[in-house]
Amino acid sequence: MPKIAILMGSKSDLPIVERAEAVLREFGVECETRIVSAHRTPLAAAEFASGAEERGIEAIIAAAGKAAHLAGVVAAHTALPVIGLPIGSPTFCGLDALLSVVQMPKGVPVATVAVDGAENAGLLAVQILSLRYGGLRQRMKDYKEAMAKETARLDEELQAGRAPQDR
Amino acid sequence: MPKIAILMGSKSDLPIVERAEAVLREFGVECETRIVSAHRTPLAAAEFASGAEERGIEAIIAAAGKAAHLAGVVAAHTALPVIGLPIGSPTFCGLDALLSVVQMPKGVPVATVAVDGAENAGLLAVQILSLRYGGLRQRMKDYKEAMAKETARLDEELQAGRAPQDR
Amino acid sequence: MPKIAILMGSKSDLPIVERAEAVLREFGVECETRIVSAHRTPLAAAEFASGAEERGIEAIIAAAGKAAHLAGVVAAHTALPVIGLPIGSPTFCGLDALLSVVQMPKGVPVATVAVDGAENAGLLAVQILSLRYGGLRQRMKDYKEAMAKETARLDEELQAGRAPQDR
Amino acid sequence: MPKIAILMGSKSDLPIVERAEAVLREFGVECETRIVSAHRTPLAAAEFASGAEERGIEAIIAAAGKAAHLAGVVAAHTALPVIGLPIGSPTFCGLDALLSVVQMPKGVPVATVAVDGAENAGLLAVQILSLRYGGLRQRMKDYKEAMAKETARLDEELQAGRAPQDR
Amino acid sequence: MPKIAILMGSKSDLPIVERAEAVLREFGVECETRIVSAHRTPLAAAEFASGAEERGIEAIIAAAGKAAHLAGVVAAHTALPVIGLPIGSPTFCGLDALLSVVQMPKGVPVATVAVDGAENAGLLAVQILSLRYGGLRQRMKDYKEAMAKETARLDEELQAGRAPQDR
Amino acid sequence: MPKIAILMGSKSDLPIVERAEAVLREFGVECETRIVSAHRTPLAAAEFASGAEERGIEAIIAAAGKAAHLAGVVAAHTALPVIGLPIGSPTFCGLDALLSVVQMPKGVPVATVAVDGAENAGLLAVQILSLRYGGLRQRMKDYKEAMAKETARLDEELQAGRAPQDR
Amino acid sequence: MPKIAILMGSKSDLPIVERAEAVLREFGVECETRIVSAHRTPLAAAEFASGAEERGIEAIIAAAGKAAHLAGVVAAHTALPVIGLPIGSPTFCGLDALLSVVQMPKGVPVATVAVDGAENAGLLAVQILSLRYGGLRQRMKDYKEAMAKETARLDEELQAGRAPQDR
Amino acid sequence: MPKIAILMGSKSDLPIVERAEAVLREFGVECETRIVSAHRTPLAAAEFASGAEERGIEAIIAAAGKAAHLAGVVAAHTALPVIGLPIGSPTFCGLDALLSVVQMPKGVPVATVAVDGAENAGLLAVQILSLRYGGLRQRMKDYKEAMAKETARLDEELQAGRAPQDR
Repeated sequence: MPKIAILMGSKSDLPIVERAEAVLREFGVECETRIVSAHRTPLAAAEFASGAEERGIEAIIAAAGKAAHLAGVVAAHTALPVIGLPIGSPTFCGLDALLSVVQMPKGVPVATVAVDGAENAGLLAVQILSLRYGGLRQRMKDYKEAMAKETARLDEELQAGRAPQDR
Repeated sequence: MPKIAILMGSKSDLPIVERAEAVLREFGVECETRIVSAHRTPLAAAEFASGAEERGIEAIIAAAGKAAHLAGVVAAHTALPVIGLPIGSPTFCGLDALLSVVQMPKGVPVATVAVDGAENAGLLAVQILSLRYGGLRQRMKDYKEAMAKETARLDEELQAGRAPQDR
Repeated sequence: MPKIAILMGSKSDLPIVERAEAVLREFGVECETRIVSAHRTPLAAAEFASGAEERGIEAIIAAAGKAAHLAGVVAAHTALPVIGLPIGSPTFCGLDALLSVVQMPKGVPVATVAVDGAENAGLLAVQILSLRYGGLRQRMKDYKEAMAKETARLDEELQAGRAPQDR
Repeated sequence: MPKIAILMGSKSDLPIVERAEAVLREFGVECETRIVSAHRTPLAAAEFASGAEERGIEAIIAAAGKAAHLAGVVAAHTALPVIGLPIGSPTFCGLDALLSVVQMPKGVPVATVAVDGAENAGLLAVQILSLRYGGLRQRMKDYKEAMAKETARLDEELQAGRAPQDR
Repeated sequence: MPKIAILMGSKSDLPIVERAEAVLREFGVECETRIVSAHRTPLAAAEFASGAEERGIEAIIAAAGKAAHLAGVVAAHTALPVIGLPIGSPTFCGLDALLSVVQMPKGVPVATVAVDGAENAGLLAVQILSLRYGGLRQRMKDYKEAMAKETARLDEELQAGRAPQDR
Repeated sequence: MPKIAILMGSKSDLPIVERAEAVLREFGVECETRIVSAHRTPLAAAEFASGAEERGIEAIIAAAGKAAHLAGVVAAHTALPVIGLPIGSPTFCGLDALLSVVQMPKGVPVATVAVDGAENAGLLAVQILSLRYGGLRQRMKDYKEAMAKETARLDEELQAGRAPQDR
Repeated sequence: MPKIAILMGSKSDLPIVERAEAVLREFGVECETRIVSAHRTPLAAAEFASGAEERGIEAIIAAAGKAAHLAGVVAAHTALPVIGLPIGSPTFCGLDALLSVVQMPKGVPVATVAVDGAENAGLLAVQILSLRYGGLRQRMKDYKEAMAKETARLDEELQAGRAPQDR
Repeated sequence: MPKIAILMGSKSDLPIVERAEAVLREFGVECETRIVSAHRTPLAAAEFASGAEERGIEAIIAAAGKAAHLAGVVAAHTALPVIGLPIGSPTFCGLDALLSVVQMPKGVPVATVAVDGAENAGLLAVQILSLRYGGLRQRMKDYKEAMAKETARLDEELQAGRAPQDR
């Protein structure tokens, strides 16, 4: 049963969004990925957000670029936590998307991650789920430990005079 | 009789929005001013936008600050022209509102005016209405002429060595 | 037949401007595309703007980059609605053009669309024309519906596990 | 009883942070507010973050201005969800704090809210807690409904020709 | 006697523009100050610029804020050197005016000075005039020397343990 | 024969600076192009600026990128008009150079042109020289006329349904 | 006794610069404070920088606003470490000063601190001096410890339910 | 032998960081280059910074991009001078990294150099070391002299009509 929904405003966001999916898969979190647009399919966006809790969704990741209204619109229609993923574009280096996502008015928060920071959107979803699912908390700790070890390993390669290489 | 709707996302936008109302009144254009929020009352916003045409509204002015989604959300739900009025705030000098309003994706335009440019939102509404109401076209020409005369009068005062004063 | 003028400040704006022309053509709106510059041919710009109404033009799209004065200069010389299309350039990602177009002083509005948002400039022109030409209003609704359907179709492809493809 | 920690980098952040506390109190969420600095008391910050889970903390709000490293530093030391609250300052209107908080590298997310958006930091914490505490989910829905009603009431006052007043 | 025209787009620019006038007066340069607007009185602006050379004007200072088109519009209509003086405003701290003035396209330069830098607009006019009027060159050297002496005197006061005071 | 100096802070600025040289050559203005750096050869920069007038230089163009101090440093050492040409770079799209060049303090103006606007730096130099050399004024008028004609020709090609081509 | 020079470009920078002096005094570091301007007294600036080492100066703090060239100009004339202190101003919130100070070209570094960060300019000078003066290293450690204790004390006051007060 | 530590937050910073190493090598300064991350290996970062002085490190260069917390975190844990090297990235052209590094709060300075300004980070380290190691002061003077000569040579090539070439 899908636990996290990932919404994107446009098909062109898919390559970035897939990095969030990959993180969720790595943590064994089922997710449902949808193309719904705050501007092109506003009814679908509202309907999805309103019905998400009933479908068993526990948090929503919403990705959009430019005047990125999707996360805010979704957050308006649900009491679930909404993670906003601003997508960069050449025109304003993602500043338009970042400000459109993060500067939400009092009453309707969006948990915003870095521009194009899809992996972190996925990880934040896992951290939120881990309030309820203890196993995810432990897997997140393992993830952090593995990340620290990998950085330490790269550091050791560098100390040893070798060009540090990803595994 | 032509009818413009002015929507604002928050009561605090009212002092700025009233300058748009004043312009419309000056041109004899009836207007309906409403507080509806893309985030706090999303259903009201969608409902108003969807039904606006039927109610005889011919163009909509939508004012909002920060992550200013109102104009975009309204534009998603109507085929009427939507004028976006970004409202400034201390945090980003209105840049957040401007980018949130103007950077709309392909398919759903918002006719954006300057930050806090409420008078111009009203004038743009008049210019749009004047496609249908010839009298408004003439009044707009008169307005432009009066504006030019007033500027010329101020210039003359200055030439005459007097401090130019608004009338 | 309704008529839109598209002005561009420089030949180099043509590839972007053509996307606005294509939209107008799709809606069956006649348009006249011209190269006139606020800085290099200021008399032509003023003359065109002043005489536009008489020639049957009903709204003007003005595209320019950098210190993008064209839309403002045109708006100074006409009572018609003027749509400003800021053209991006590498130096300031279009921020210079956007601010030059949108930050118009009280009295002379320019209806600004997104940086390089040529399609939306065209659609906004159609929305404005549709106050007078009821057929365009219907076509705009059809356009919005088709857009929603296409987004829904892409979403379905994604749900079905296929890579969503434009038709 | 669920428990949130609110950390602030400087005593001067307290007036803003107190608005997050007030929200949590309104929802009956216990919270522990601390002054710890990523730069002045880095050991205290690391120690608090590392031990937070064991102390029963379920999510952490970290508020800081300028080069706002606190949220990122705390997130480095815990697997709990960390909410970043950028505090504005005159120099860069909070842009420095926003970018320092939100632009986290891959692997260590911070759930960022608007500059000075303390209420939303509190509400986001409640939304996260509500994954585990069903009562909070219901209270959040009530909160959203009350907010919608209040906005509708202000709108009605405006329609009735009265100056809309907060209760 | 050499003659400079100072144009401003709005009466509200006068307090800043007067500092440019004061500099010119100090150097014995005659100047003509006018309120002409690129947007409100475009014909007057074009006419003034086109006829300026014939009237004996040798350089033009053009001051404007927001979408500050005046300097560019004036430069389009004259071969005289045009000095652009961007006027700041709260919304974008003068960035809109600066970019609108300085980012002129190839072929039509505007000699831009700092935001609100009215004294420097005056001094630059003097430096330009001094190509033709040798006396002004000498006075500019005297000005620079006096400025250096005054700074040195303030430095000496500080060295002597006194609070440095303007004379 | 009138003489302009073009200074650049770095060899890498040469390709842009050469476009200013080309303009000067086109107008028959002699120019001396030098590599002197405010930071690497500060004595040479000061010496050149101090002695420029005596060598017959009548205006100086100073090009530099990043923390572009060259124009300001040169202006500190001469009473001649100094034209500042900010050179763009990937890091801040030239915003660093623009602000470093244009935001000069009271007393020492720099006539700033657009980022990478080398042709306009050359044209501005010609406009300044034309106060003294009447022939240049005429050539500048011819230049403007030719530019207008070329733009009109491109417009005609477009009207005629041909792709407008530079000659 | 170690000696620091503090240079400021303008008398108006004094109130901020005095906070750097106070820090140096607190650490028992002698300092010489001077008003020298890169633009108004360029010879004094160059002379001071060139002769600083010989006078026993061991590091230089240079404070300036807007097009803040002073630190860069001083760094051009000395091999001593130069600390750049950008001074904010309303126009660009100090962004102009920050970029003018920090974006130095390859070969001539300026050690830049935060906008208006005068205390940190003083502390950085102490840290640099402490390479040679061991006592200062110890005092810096004491300073850091005292700062940590003070922050801990404020935290304890807050825990105890008292409004944290500076001593 | 004097010793500098160069820390980088990510393996991907290595190509830029190596330019700082090269400068240090050129000056005969020993350096230790490490990959430690404020977010992925916070304990290693804290430990390295705390123990750096004891290991004979005399100054630390810390390079990081995006929300670049490394330099600030390191500075929190040591009394040594810390040089911050902001690393650019496409999203915000390095503005996020610059502000995250330079805008440090009172009490914990970071000596910031230009975005990607690795050579200057190395040179600044040398200038700091030269307070203690007189030989390095002399080598820095030689370096500056050589740099000036090289710039003069390039200038001469240009004067001689040859394309200036690096040696």
